[in-house]
Amino acid sequence: MASQCNRQGNPLYFPSKQPSHRDEVKRLHLTAEQQVAALQQRYLGAVYDRLHHVVPQDADGTYPMLRYHLGWEEADGTPSSTSGGKALRPVLCLMACEMAGGDWHQALPAAAALELVHNFSLLHDDIQDRDITRRGRATAWTIWGIPQAVVAGNAMRVAADRSLTQLADSGLSAPTTIAASRMLTQRYMEMIEGQYLDMSFEESGEVTTAQYLDMIGRKTGALIQSAMYMGALIATGDTRSAEAIGQCGRGLGLAFQVWDDYLGIWGDPAVFGKPVGSDIARKKKSLPVVHVFQQIRGADRQRLLQIYSAPEIQGADVETVMAMMAEAGTDRYVREIALTQSQQALEPLSGLGISDDIRRQVTAMAEFFVTREK
Amino acid sequence: MASQCNRQGNPLYFPSKQPSHRDEVKRLHLTAEQQVAALQQRYLGAVYDRLHHVVPQDADGTYPMLRYHLGWEEADGTPSSTSGGKALRPVLCLMACEMAGGDWHQALPAAAALELVHNFSLLHDDIQDRDITRRGRATAWTIWGIPQAVVAGNAMRVAADRSLTQLADSGLSAPTTIAASRMLTQRYMEMIEGQYLDMSFEESGEVTTAQYLDMIGRKTGALIQSAMYMGALIATGDTRSAEAIGQCGRGLGLAFQVWDDYLGIWGDPAVFGKPVGSDIARKKKSLPVVHVFQQIRGADRQRLLQIYSAPEIQGADVETVMAMMAEAGTDRYVREIALTQSQQALEPLSGLGISDDIRRQVTAMAEFFVTREK
Repeated sequence: MASQCNRQGNPLYFPSKQPSHRDEVKRLHLTAEQQVAALQQRYLGAVYDRLHHVVPQDADGTYPMLRYHLGWEEADGTPSSTSGGKALRPVLCLMACEMAGGDWHQALPAAAALELVHNFSLLHDDIQDRDITRRGRATAWTIWGIPQAVVAGNAMRVAADRSLTQLADSGLSAPTTIAASRMLTQRYMEMIEGQYLDMSFEESGEVTTAQYLDMIGRKTGALIQSAMYMGALIATGDTRSAEAIGQCGRGLGLAFQVWDDYLGIWGDPAVFGKPVGSDIARKKKSLPVVHVFQQIRGADRQRLLQIYSAPEIQGADVETVMAMMAEAGTDRYVREIALTQSQQALEPLSGLGISDDIRRQVTAMAEFFVTREK
Repeated sequence: MASQCNRQGNPLYFPSKQPSHRDEVKRLHLTAEQQVAALQQRYLGAVYDRLHHVVPQDADGTYPMLRYHLGWEEADGTPSSTSGGKALRPVLCLMACEMAGGDWHQALPAAAALELVHNFSLLHDDIQDRDITRRGRATAWTIWGIPQAVVAGNAMRVAADRSLTQLADSGLSAPTTIAASRMLTQRYMEMIEGQYLDMSFEESGEVTTAQYLDMIGRKTGALIQSAMYMGALIATGDTRSAEAIGQCGRGLGLAFQVWDDYLGIWGDPAVFGKPVGSDIARKKKSLPVVHVFQQIRGADRQRLLQIYSAPEIQGADVETVMAMMAEAGTDRYVREIALTQSQQALEPLSGLGISDDIRRQVTAMAEFFVTREK
């Protein structure tokens, strides 16, 4: 860690600079993490059963790519011990169903659909960003090539549709099934608009923090919004409470992504699995980068522009950018945005008759989203 | 044309070899073409209205790519005079709705959805096949790059979903709306499986004609099947007649694609817009190529393998392959398959109470599919 110091010789990352924040975060985090783990334990078996049910088991064709990407199999078709990700969207969908007083089992087709839509977008994102690893494994396009990986993404998306149409089989009324599907389509359209904006931001020069937050609201927030909206709608058919619970989801999605951006620079390498400053090295235009570009002036700004004009950013330059972020208060800014978003996410729930138990769960989720270390 | 002769010195293409077939085709074609044109004239204004309604008009973002691909705009956003394609899937969907005794206006959301799903697949296909022109213009990925074109395809697909959810607004019952959507999902999954197989065939060595026909049944037949199924289902809600009419669609789709493969080699360059033998030059593994590989033996086979092992196939080798096809009777074989498929496509309709007028229209469509020159 000795080399990772800023120009004042202080370590660049939060341990020494914000001990009180970190301690508090640790304390909150443990409780929140335990509660979220309990929720996951409650739902995930049924979610995975449903996912295995809708993704075809064919030995040939495009489906082995899907099972590989989902972490169920290796590229040669043998079983994999890879973790399949956090499955947050299904968990939030099922929790929202319970928040609105429903039986979460009825929302399982929607929960599985959300996980598949999310994984569809990851498959295509990996191609677009030319990312070569995901969850510690080679990305699908690096194994099967871009054309096949594009098709695998499309197949993942149609598996999601397939799951969603099964809502009607679980006894849900046809109009509510249509309303759920319509909401997913609408939010999914926003997600694609967000992906487009994300790519344009990577190419364009200046992006404001407001533009950036709007983009991630679409790219990440919209799908989580539809997760919680659908869960609530399935419970009651009542669109008013589903709207409020959906708004909570959008806020949580934003908070989740901002914290992801935080971890992408200041995450603990031993836990987060990526080197400190990794999003700088990757030249990813995440919120910290957008913020430092917006704040910095004069010679430092010229230096920053020069660093970002190179095709890759190397170790010493990563440290320089991190030092500029420290001066601009970027880490504090990003943490505060994450925290504010996660708190504001709970506001739309205030008028709803949600049990104390479930309210504790969603609060834990909101805390977990902005305290998690990976 | 002098250079385009086979080893016996005869012209390679059908004019001199099958005059009677061609004359009959000409005669049938004129009538069929006029009837299909009348159908298109009847429906297409409303289809385009609907398409313009569901594809967002935003000046920025991903949507200008969609409007470019659809032939409505140029890359700089100015209006385009390009033809947007044949819109066969919407026409077949609306015709099927009338076949089953319905009001075709009610099927417009499905018709528009089908055209968008089809164009979504073309956008991604162009990337996968690295095709640089479509309908005489640069393909989207050559202008905006692969990542943006992948996103544009996804946005096209979600515009399709958006259109489909509007079925319920046109007074269709919710269960029928769900059944239509479910069928589209199922056939769309087949279409993706077909795309996967198509790509694997391009990479693999031997493909039988049976495997090839199975592949195009999925890649092209399945979506046309769902077009006619949905049109019929929307008319009556009766799944039995919709199944039969859908089966007709699958056969028509197969016939259409086989004839496309025929035109890809023996099409009239002045009408079809591509040089004679173009699918050979492109090394496309279409039905004629699959057939000649399956038929040819001995030294000719070695020569064929050698020609296809080169990265590109040049003029003289294209002629050699066409001469081999002439010897193997490939042109006759492909025409017969197309004709048989188009005739068999009408069989499932026999038990249904379809008016003579509509029966003439679908027969004209079946004839047009295997006699068209472009």
